[in-house]
Amino acid sequence: MTVVANVVDGENNSAPAGATAAPKDPWALPDVSHLVVGVLGGTGNQGRGLAYRLARAGQRVILGSRDADRARRVAAEVGHDVEGADNAECARRSDIVIVAVPWDGHAEILQSLRTDLAGKLVVDCVNPLGCDKQGAYALTMPEGSAAQQAAELLAESRVTAAFHHLSAALLQNPEIEEIDTDVMVLGDSRADTDTVQALAARIPGMRGVYAGRLRNAHQVESLVANLISANRRYKAHAGLRATDI
Amino acid sequence: MTVVANVVDGENNSAPAGATAAPKDPWALPDVSHLVVGVLGGTGNQGRGLAYRLARAGQRVILGSRDADRARRVAAEVGHDVEGADNAECARRSDIVIVAVPWDGHAEILQSLRTDLAGKLVVDCVNPLGCDKQGAYALTMPEGSAAQQAAELLAESRVTAAFHHLSAALLQNPEIEEIDTDVMVLGDSRADTDTVQALAARIPGMRGVYAGRLRNAHQVESLVANLISANRRYKAHAGLRATDI
Repeated sequence: MTVVANVVDGENNSAPAGATAAPKDPWALPDVSHLVVGVLGGTGNQGRGLAYRLARAGQRVILGSRDADRARRVAAEVGHDVEGADNAECARRSDIVIVAVPWDGHAEILQSLRTDLAGKLVVDCVNPLGCDKQGAYALTMPEGSAAQQAAELLAESRVTAAFHHLSAALLQNPEIEEIDTDVMVLGDSRADTDTVQALAARIPGMRGVYAGRLRNAHQVESLVANLISANRRYKAHAGLRATDI
Repeated sequence: MTVVANVVDGENNSAPAGATAAPKDPWALPDVSHLVVGVLGGTGNQGRGLAYRLARAGQRVILGSRDADRARRVAAEVGHDVEGADNAECARRSDIVIVAVPWDGHAEILQSLRTDLAGKLVVDCVNPLGCDKQGAYALTMPEGSAAQQAAELLAESRVTAAFHHLSAALLQNPEIEEIDTDVMVLGDSRADTDTVQALAARIPGMRGVYAGRLRNAHQVESLVANLISANRRYKAHAGLRATDI
């Protein structure tokens, strides 16, 4: 069936799931301060920025790269006791593994780390975008989204999606104290999305908000194309806040 | 080419368009107070809510429906001098025409109104969603999005997309003075997106923000599925605010 146009309100939706559950407090989340966070592709701008923010907030972080030496070099630059390792060691030694690799190598890298990532909570933050003279645009893929591709490739991991809409420039700027944005967190297990929301909330200014199942990841990943358009027009580093939550 | 993962910042993007333009003030917009706004599908919850808010803000509004009598009845309920008419008359007499019809009849209705909509600024706000026991999910269509479908069908109109993420419940609630949200406005002509942003800004609390070309409309339309998930979990009527703009 199709939903009537523009029915945003949950109570107007005919599907029963969750309809009678108590409202969830977006701040009532587990303690994740003891968990080790790995960042695959941690030498890229987004990965480095996330590693920096999480480590600065007191999280133990391992920054991964194909090249362990490069990972160690960048980790030393990031500071805050961030360690560097090759991607496989980064995955094995972490509880939560953020995937911040380029879309171009996404499938290949995850495939090669399948056993290292078994049993881990994986957070995909990859935005599959193309770019031409009119700007950025969303790519499509048979799996539906980068996160769903990760879930298909990593059958023994728990895959979620989050951290898509962050400005790497803001993340990496040490003079900025707070990152003024909500983080949309997607996944099919509430325990897992709660954990990722809690991780986002470790970063001052940031809040994790549940934003649906993994099958609805494509539009969240693709929305970065729209933010790029807005950032260009307004010379901004736009984030997104959900109101009324 | 593909963009490196997660490059949200405009300045990191390699495409040249707009790279040297001055930043745009999101409030420096044309005066639209004299324009007549039609709302196709104005008897539905979203259309009725938009008609109410725009008319309450002083805009002249014509509410359209397949059934002129029903349109007039609903218009009388909405008040604020809103008129009712059949969809064709609504289109002909309006300067800006908001398309708030159900996705199921979207193509058919627009096709039938092609000549009535010639020369008009059309604002598509339709969210093509499906729904099953796991909740809402994005539909795909050959044109890419509802807005692109409208643009293909209405070659003589200027088609934009906006007003996707609004809560019909909040729009229609007369006790709510301000609608706390930004409205993402998409289109390929800056003059047209400026006009639609100005229209959004007529509603207290609301701000129109440019969010890219029409080819990036799919993810904006589909994001409603994510907002529905969030609204269910948090018993909220979530809107979205862009930070740093």
